[in-house]
Amino acid sequence: MAINRTATPLVDVPRGLAGVVVTETEIGDVRGREGFYHYRQYSAVELARTRRFEDVWHLLVHGTLPDAERGAAFAAETAALRRLPEELRASLPAIAAASRASGPLAGLRTGLSLLGAARGFRPLYDLDADRRRADTLAACAAVPTLLTALYRLGRGLEPVEPREDLPYAANYLYMLTGSVPDPRRARAVEQYLISTIDHGFNASTFTARVVASTGADTAACLTGAVGALSGPLHGGAPSRALDTLDAIGTPDRVDSWIRERVLAGERIMGFGHAVYRTEDPRSRMLREIALGFGGPRVEFAVEVERRVEAVLAELKPGRELHTNVEFYAGVVMELCGLPREMFTPTFAAGRVVGWSANILEQAADSKIIRPAARYVGPEPAATVPAA
Amino acid sequence: MAINRTATPLVDVPRGLAGVVVTETEIGDVRGREGFYHYRQYSAVELARTRRFEDVWHLLVHGTLPDAERGAAFAAETAALRRLPEELRASLPAIAAASRASGPLAGLRTGLSLLGAARGFRPLYDLDADRRRADTLAACAAVPTLLTALYRLGRGLEPVEPREDLPYAANYLYMLTGSVPDPRRARAVEQYLISTIDHGFNASTFTARVVASTGADTAACLTGAVGALSGPLHGGAPSRALDTLDAIGTPDRVDSWIRERVLAGERIMGFGHAVYRTEDPRSRMLREIALGFGGPRVEFAVEVERRVEAVLAELKPGRELHTNVEFYAGVVMELCGLPREMFTPTFAAGRVVGWSANILEQAADSKIIRPAARYVGPEPAATVPAA
Repeated sequence: MAINRTATPLVDVPRGLAGVVVTETEIGDVRGREGFYHYRQYSAVELARTRRFEDVWHLLVHGTLPDAERGAAFAAETAALRRLPEELRASLPAIAAASRASGPLAGLRTGLSLLGAARGFRPLYDLDADRRRADTLAACAAVPTLLTALYRLGRGLEPVEPREDLPYAANYLYMLTGSVPDPRRARAVEQYLISTIDHGFNASTFTARVVASTGADTAACLTGAVGALSGPLHGGAPSRALDTLDAIGTPDRVDSWIRERVLAGERIMGFGHAVYRTEDPRSRMLREIALGFGGPRVEFAVEVERRVEAVLAELKPGRELHTNVEFYAGVVMELCGLPREMFTPTFAAGRVVGWSANILEQAADSKIIRPAARYVGPEPAATVPAA
Repeated sequence: MAINRTATPLVDVPRGLAGVVVTETEIGDVRGREGFYHYRQYSAVELARTRRFEDVWHLLVHGTLPDAERGAAFAAETAALRRLPEELRASLPAIAAASRASGPLAGLRTGLSLLGAARGFRPLYDLDADRRRADTLAACAAVPTLLTALYRLGRGLEPVEPREDLPYAANYLYMLTGSVPDPRRARAVEQYLISTIDHGFNASTFTARVVASTGADTAACLTGAVGALSGPLHGGAPSRALDTLDAIGTPDRVDSWIRERVLAGERIMGFGHAVYRTEDPRSRMLREIALGFGGPRVEFAVEVERRVEAVLAELKPGRELHTNVEFYAGVVMELCGLPREMFTPTFAAGRVVGWSANILEQAADSKIIRPAARYVGPEPAATVPAA
């Protein structure tokens, strides 16, 4: 009889741990039937509509929305952490060169791992709550600097030094292009980043929490999370929704293109979501932002959305298939001048704050996450055949 | 009401997922009551006693023990993968400098992340079984090269190039010291490495599987696993058992030292295990190996073991507390000339093969591992207070 590691009885659960409650959380939740998700006790979309990124970051890792003075202090505290340590800067060209084939998330994974070492991150287990939080702030603040430096080095361009006087999102765009972005674009990216900070218990968030439960350092948790995010089954890739727009090409081709795909049993990228049974609240917000920009690309996207939903309602009645966050996220990021290969890395630049909140919450729990497996191979023997 | 991501009902399970069956496995198991663990259908200790590391590696990732010809081919195949790619070699001094504070596992984490990028590892999701296995072989073969190069660079020494004509363990010691090890030491380390390849479903193995379940690349899975292994709650640190020997100092102090610690409620490092209710089979094997070396240090260790077990039996009757793998692993690694800070990294040089087998098994399953959390914070509101 197989005995599991902790000598407790084996418990059978749904495959992939679907629905299995790993932990209680005060960070947030998704209410699929209501088309609503929240960070702490606030609507995430309302936070994106009304607050700046740094305020929501403070909400996630400190638990409260800051007042104006505290918010300004937190923004200054995190802006001062944007510059990378010297040992890391020296390694960036080699990391960029090596990561050319595996892409920007592999570069971010390496960069965060090295950042943690260079900053002397210590195991969460050995730190008090303030020091743990300080390490997560240092890691999050460095993500845009790392991403943009690796992106530019990969194109033979010099990295652009971070500016402390710009907000998180504006500074990200500035480091990417070398120019201070216009306020509308900076604000659109800021709202997108706020809306991606957290969204239930996904595989990368869970990975961050498993590593955190061992008491390892913040960089160990975040590199694990970035690794999980890079998996094709993790979920979204906002650039794929733009690929759908490109493949359709012109408004007159929408109906035939969609019918062909749906009848062939293919998924239409940018439509449908595992949880939402109504419109995805992120999609609604990002559509509004896109409409604020206007122009033929946005009009085409809205037209595609309208007609795809109509065709899906006809061919898959009762399924309630709407655009998901990918669809208008891709449109908005394109409007803001972000290159497609930076769409998922930009998502990571928001999500890293959510991972951090989860790491901090997990570190306050002393119980390691260590499940079991059931051996189903051949009955083992004590002897081994001779070599 | 909170609705979890996958819209399936929430399932409550023991804290930390203790005993929760994540997967079926054919890789191996631990039988705590019998003092027995196995890889595939073979006793792990018998494999360590009778086989070479490369044969057991083949068993783990191919599923079968190779015959002599196949074993030689596999050894040659993996030996050819030991040399690091040029972009990675160029980054090693910076990684070593940055990792000085965070230690060799942080260096290994960064090195493996960069290796995966430099070798162009692709998502497991996009690869067939052969290509997946090839990536794990490249990663495992590079671990001793990475560890020893970073160790030497941290001490101002030039890395030693790997030799393809030496077995895995002998080459590891050779790259660490610059000298070909004597056969007894090489074989002792080889047996230790074989005995650490796998041992049930621990937190690092689980991390590797969660990341693999997203379809991410092998480097993403392994950096996550190394991160989890670096957590103080993950488990063993063989150097701590030597610290116990050092703290006791001389045989006459054993009884008083132990009584003091046990009465103060302290754990004695190197004794006791969560699963084994009999002697740890790894401990028994490593004691034999240590006795083969002989000398006053080994005699002292055996004496400490004998008297600690006697005191523990008296003070904690019925608890069956024996030495665990840490105790004699530390003694053996010291006898083989490994510095204490390399004990856990050496463990990783064996365990990476077990992680790889788990990654490959997980990648063959299409179901992402994505559990749920229960929101227990304040009831959320749709509105956000003005900034």
